[in-house]
Amino acid sequence: MLRRIDHVGVAVEDIDAALPLYRDVLGLAVTHRETVPEQGVDAALLDVGDGHVELLAPLGPETGVGKFLASRGPGLHHVAYAVDDIEQALDALREAGLRLIDERARRGIRNSRVAFVHPSATGGVLIEIVQPAEDH
Amino acid sequence: MLRRIDHVGVAVEDIDAALPLYRDVLGLAVTHRETVPEQGVDAALLDVGDGHVELLAPLGPETGVGKFLASRGPGLHHVAYAVDDIEQALDALREAGLRLIDERARRGIRNSRVAFVHPSATGGVLIEIVQPAEDH
Repeated sequence: MLRRIDHVGVAVEDIDAALPLYRDVLGLAVTHRETVPEQGVDAALLDVGDGHVELLAPLGPETGVGKFLASRGPGLHHVAYAVDDIEQALDALREAGLRLIDERARRGIRNSRVAFVHPSATGGVLIEIVQPAEDH
Repeated sequence: MLRRIDHVGVAVEDIDAALPLYRDVLGLAVTHRETVPEQGVDAALLDVGDGHVELLAPLGPETGVGKFLASRGPGLHHVAYAVDDIEQALDALREAGLRLIDERARRGIRNSRVAFVHPSATGGVLIEIVQPAEDH
C-alpha cells in the first residue's frame, strides 16, 4: 500500500528562521512554498532524494500545528507515505479498523491529496498518506 | 550532503506488539531484526520504497529511547538521512557549528555507521546521519 516515505513534517515557529539549517547547512534545495489554509499551515518543501522535508509553521494557535507547538514544542510532527490511490488506501485502513482523522482525502500541499491517521491508532505516530499530484 | 531519507525511527514499548500495524495493516516487509547494544535498542527494519521504518524498543529505562518513552510516550523518535561519507558529513556539520551528540560515527543497525545531531541544534528534531554498509 505504501510506496515510499514521501516526506517528514517538521513543526517550526517560523519557516524563514528554519531555512538556514535545512538549506544552507544541510544543503537541501527549497522546491516549493505555499500557504495551505486547509491544513492551517504555512509550508516549505525541500528536496532530499525523491522525498522531502516539509517545514510547517502554524497559521494560528488553534490549528493542529499551533496546538502541537504549544504542547510539545518544535520538532518532528508527522511522517507521510506516498500511495498510488488514496481512496483505496483509506478504504483499506478503514477496513483494518484504524481510527482516521480524515475520513476522506483533503487537499494538501502542491495539489496533493492527503489524509491523516489518528496517532491513537498508530502508536503515537501521526501518519499521513499522500497521493501526489500527477506532475510530482 | 544528504542523499535521501533513509528511515524514520519510531519509539515503541514492544516490537512484537507494533509489528501487526506496520506489517499486516500497512503491508511493509520486515527485512531485519537486531539488538543494537551500542544504541540501547532492540530494533526492526521494515522496507518502504528504498527507505525504512525502524521500530525501536529500549533495552532499559536509562537508554535514550527508554528516556524518550518515559518523557514523551511512543511515537516518532528521529529521522535519518543517508550520506555517502559520514566523516565528511560530520566535519561539515561541525564546521557549521552544530552541536553533535556523536563527535565520531558509531556502529548502527546492520553494520551501518551513524551519528546523531543534538536536537537543540536542529529545532527539536533528532537527526541521524547514516552511512549504510556497502551491501545495503
